[in-house]
Amino acid sequence: MKIAVLGTGMVGQTIGSKLVQLGHEVMMGSRDADNPKAVMWAKKEEASQHAIFGTFANAAAFGEIIFNCTLGSASLNALQQAGVDNMKGKILIDTSNPLNYDGDIWTLTVCNTDSLGEQIQRAFPETLVIKSLNTINSNVMVDPGKLDEKTTVFISGNSADAKATVNKLLHDWFGWRSVIDLGDITTSRSVEMYAILWRNLRQATSSQRFNIKVVAS
Amino acid sequence: MKIAVLGTGMVGQTIGSKLVQLGHEVMMGSRDADNPKAVMWAKKEEASQHAIFGTFANAAAFGEIIFNCTLGSASLNALQQAGVDNMKGKILIDTSNPLNYDGDIWTLTVCNTDSLGEQIQRAFPETLVIKSLNTINSNVMVDPGKLDEKTTVFISGNSADAKATVNKLLHDWFGWRSVIDLGDITTSRSVEMYAILWRNLRQATSSQRFNIKVVAS
Repeated sequence: MKIAVLGTGMVGQTIGSKLVQLGHEVMMGSRDADNPKAVMWAKKEEASQHAIFGTFANAAAFGEIIFNCTLGSASLNALQQAGVDNMKGKILIDTSNPLNYDGDIWTLTVCNTDSLGEQIQRAFPETLVIKSLNTINSNVMVDPGKLDEKTTVFISGNSADAKATVNKLLHDWFGWRSVIDLGDITTSRSVEMYAILWRNLRQATSSQRFNIKVVAS
Repeated sequence: MKIAVLGTGMVGQTIGSKLVQLGHEVMMGSRDADNPKAVMWAKKEEASQHAIFGTFANAAAFGEIIFNCTLGSASLNALQQAGVDNMKGKILIDTSNPLNYDGDIWTLTVCNTDSLGEQIQRAFPETLVIKSLNTINSNVMVDPGKLDEKTTVFISGNSADAKATVNKLLHDWFGWRSVIDLGDITTSRSVEMYAILWRNLRQATSSQRFNIKVVAS
């Protein structure tokens, strides 16, 4: 499948590499067509012959499915550059969190009565926005088997069909065995607000390799 | 031990009953000395001879340790009624969440840059405020063994000694085997913000009997 990965940071690189290793064609998109991190990533993965790079718009036009791996603070702007028409009718898996990293205590730039997931859905009404993977560090996102137990990943979105597709992709591509559908895109609020607990847990566990498992009876 | 339980709702009743069953003396406090729910609770537990009731101030004066089980929206007012002097130097285990239940989507009345736990600590600087148990339904709070796996409970607070005491109480009284110390009282933000994910999980799992387990490697 042709996949767009928007963003050149750790999340974009990790998801992009996993997808080319699975045999998919991945274009990494960034603000500038020759972003040095995208160039280096494509070089690292060049043996696959499936790792290419371009602008946000190039990537969004290329991908049948789009991953938003940009920083939350930059996501809306990046997606505007990607272009409404290039994303129309496509699934956008939004992995971002609207975090403000200033100061010792992280805060969210939007929360409680709105969320970045909702903002993106409102800005791109003809794109199928699915919030997912934002609750886990990138190395666990693409390989939940790194943890000894089957932990949980969440999906939020308005389209049942798109959620079914993403559920299957999370299972088949990354190995997720416990996927909880939280509801429509407004439930992005809860997983974005969880980012603050994630931060505290990262400090408490002295690890980036952790996740939560929902246990119900 | 003499324990104050402030609040007559499900959380207060469940914690109060568990504590009298363990042999502790419990005074349930409420706005009015003859709150019908407190009267009924004491009657239900009268065989213990250790279940009594009174005003918030009566209970706070009585307890060596105080549980805040009032609604988050009412907590600061209830604690003012309990009285600064009655709570001075004591541990206050704050189980509340600052939830606004209006509408289909729950919101918080304070979050992100502040929390109810912090507001309480600022209002009662000589009380040892420990945020805990607010991430779980009351029936799991006092009996985590209802779930098949060892799930996680969190503690937040400024006093290491008070956290050590609460950690031991959670273990000895209720059976918690996985207690994560998140840090100082500012980390109340994260567990209160988690309440929105808790709400979504309650809907997704169609259960109130669930919790999260932190899995790290």
